[in-house]
Amino acid sequence: MSLDEATQKPHDRLSDHLAGDMERVNILIRERMASEHAPRIPEVTAHLVEAGGKRLRPMLTLAAARLCGYGGPFHIHLAATVEFIHTATLLHDDVVDESRQRRGRPTANLLWDNKSSVLVGDYLFSRSFQLMVETGSLRVLDILANASATIAEGEVLQLTAAQDLATDEAIYLQVVRGKTAALFSAATEVGGVIAGAPEDQVRALHTYGDALGVAFQIVDDLLDYGGSSAIIGKDVGDDFRERKLTLPVIRAVAKADAGERAFWSRVIEKGDQREGDLAEALRLLARHGALEETRATALDWVRKAKAALAALPAHELRDMLADLADYVVARVR
Amino acid sequence: MSLDEATQKPHDRLSDHLAGDMERVNILIRERMASEHAPRIPEVTAHLVEAGGKRLRPMLTLAAARLCGYGGPFHIHLAATVEFIHTATLLHDDVVDESRQRRGRPTANLLWDNKSSVLVGDYLFSRSFQLMVETGSLRVLDILANASATIAEGEVLQLTAAQDLATDEAIYLQVVRGKTAALFSAATEVGGVIAGAPEDQVRALHTYGDALGVAFQIVDDLLDYGGSSAIIGKDVGDDFRERKLTLPVIRAVAKADAGERAFWSRVIEKGDQREGDLAEALRLLARHGALEETRATALDWVRKAKAALAALPAHELRDMLADLADYVVARVR
Repeated sequence: MSLDEATQKPHDRLSDHLAGDMERVNILIRERMASEHAPRIPEVTAHLVEAGGKRLRPMLTLAAARLCGYGGPFHIHLAATVEFIHTATLLHDDVVDESRQRRGRPTANLLWDNKSSVLVGDYLFSRSFQLMVETGSLRVLDILANASATIAEGEVLQLTAAQDLATDEAIYLQVVRGKTAALFSAATEVGGVIAGAPEDQVRALHTYGDALGVAFQIVDDLLDYGGSSAIIGKDVGDDFRERKLTLPVIRAVAKADAGERAFWSRVIEKGDQREGDLAEALRLLARHGALEETRATALDWVRKAKAALAALPAHELRDMLADLADYVVARVR
Repeated sequence: MSLDEATQKPHDRLSDHLAGDMERVNILIRERMASEHAPRIPEVTAHLVEAGGKRLRPMLTLAAARLCGYGGPFHIHLAATVEFIHTATLLHDDVVDESRQRRGRPTANLLWDNKSSVLVGDYLFSRSFQLMVETGSLRVLDILANASATIAEGEVLQLTAAQDLATDEAIYLQVVRGKTAALFSAATEVGGVIAGAPEDQVRALHTYGDALGVAFQIVDDLLDYGGSSAIIGKDVGDDFRERKLTLPVIRAVAKADAGERAFWSRVIEKGDQREGDLAEALRLLARHGALEETRATALDWVRKAKAALAALPAHELRDMLADLADYVVARVR
C-alpha cells in the first residue's frame, strides 16, 4: 500500500486490489480472441481490447464475486464474458455511428472496414456466449441473455428516439439502460450469482450496477456539453452534432418557449445546424439550469447505488465500490 | 394425404408432416420478435421473416426431435432459436455484402439502413439466446454457442480468403461450414439432444446436418455458375462479380495453365473485370469439367448425409430427411 492510497482514484484502487484476478482475465481474453482460421479477428480485437480501455465492467464482476466470498474459478470467465460483450457492442456502435475515433485511436471500421467490425463483433459475442456456458450456471446465462436483449433494444430505440423532441426522460432512461446500465448491472449481478450469494445481496448488486451505469451515462452525456460548469471534459458537442437527444437537452426542451422549441426542432429534429448553433444550445442549457439539473439527477443515481451497497457484507471492496460511485459524478464539476 | 404425395418436393412433405409444430414455431417467432420499446425491430424482422423463407432450419430441428420420439415443448423454442440465428446472420450478411435483394425483395439495409440491420440482427441474436436458455439444457447452449462462433469465424474468414487464389478446398470447406453447415448441424443435433436421444443418434444427427449443409452450399455455389449444364438457376455470376472464390473456380484454378491463372488472378484477386469475362470464366469451368466435378463433390456429401441416417430409428421422417438430401442436389442438372 502506498502513502497516497487515499488520493488514488477509486478505479485505480480497485484495479490494484484485483490485479491478480485481472491478470487472469487478460490472459483468458487473449486466449479466446484468437482464431485459428481467421487472423483478421485477433487483429481487430487486439486493436480495441489492448487500446487501454478501463476494464471497468470486468472489474465490477470480479469485485462483486470477491465481495461475496467467491473462491472458484468462474468469475474470471464471467469478467472476460462481460468485456467481450462490451467490445462487441463498441465495434457495432462505431459502425452505426460512423465513428472515426475510439480511445484516442482510429476506429476499426476506419482501419479495416465496416464488414470486419460487424463480423468480428459477432464473433466476440459468440465467444462471450461460449465462456458463460462454461460456467455451467443457467441463471448466469439467463441474466446475460436478458442484458444482451436490453442492450440491442436500447440501441435500436436510440436510432429512432434520438432525433425526436417528443423523447422524454422515460425513453431516455430506456436508451441509457441499453447503452450502459444493462451491462453494468449484469456484470455485478453475475458476480454475486456465481458466488452463491443470498438473494438480497444479488438484488443489491443488480441495483448498484444499474444505478452506477445510469449515473455513468448521464455524466457522459453531461460532459458532452462541457459539464455543468464547462471546466473539464472531452470535445464538446459530439452528441449535439450527431443530433442525439440526451438528458441536458431533454431538460432544456421541457422548459423551452416557442422560439427555443423552434431552435431545438431545427438543429435536432431537422438536423439543420449552422455556425453558432452549439454556442446557442449551450446558452439555452445554461439559461434553464439544464446542466445543473442533469448533474443533480446523476447524483440521485449515485446515492441509489451507494444505498444498495448496505445489503452487502462490510468489506474493503464494498468501500471501493461506494467510492467508485462518488467518483463517477466527481468527474464533472 | 394427396395422390401426388410421391411427387411432392421432400421439403413440402416435411412441411406438411410438421405443420402443427411449425405453426407453434411461427407463433413463438412473432411473439418474440416484438419489442415494446422499439417498433423498428418487428418492422425489420417481419420484412425478412415473413418474406416466405423456406424455414428449412427450424424444420430440421423439429424433424430431428420428433424422429427421436420427443414429446415435450422445447423443440418449438429450439426451432425458433435456429430461425432467429439464421435471420440475424442474413441481416448482417446483407450489410457485409452490400446486397440489395433477398428473397425477391429489397434488403432491410436498403429499405431502412445498415444501422438498423446491424442492431436488429444483434437483437434477434439476443432473443435466440433467451429462447435457448428457456430450454434449461446446458448441452443445447453449448452446441449453439459453438455453432455461433463457427458461423462468425467462417464469415470473417470469407472476407480475407474469398479473393485469394491460394484458397484451397480445406479453407473453402471452413467457410462453407460457417456460412451454412454449422447451423444445419446444430439444428439437427439440438433436436436429438432435447429428445434425450442416445449418443450415437445425436452424433448421426450432427453428421447428417453437417453433410446436408455442405452439400446445400456447394450446390448453391454451383448454381451461381448456372449449374453443371447451365439449364436452371438463379442469375448467373453473382459470386463471380463479387469475386468470391467458390468450389467451381477453385477446381478450375487447380487445373489452370499460366494464361488461365493470369485470367483468374486479374478477375478474382485484382477485381479487374471486363466485358466478356464471365463468359470466359464459364468456358474455363467447362473446359476443366469443374462444374461436373463440383456436382460430384456435392453428391459425395449427400451420400454421407444419407449414410448417417442409418443410425436413426426407422421413421417416416427419416425417409423424408433422406429424400431431402437427394433433392438438394437434384436442384441442379
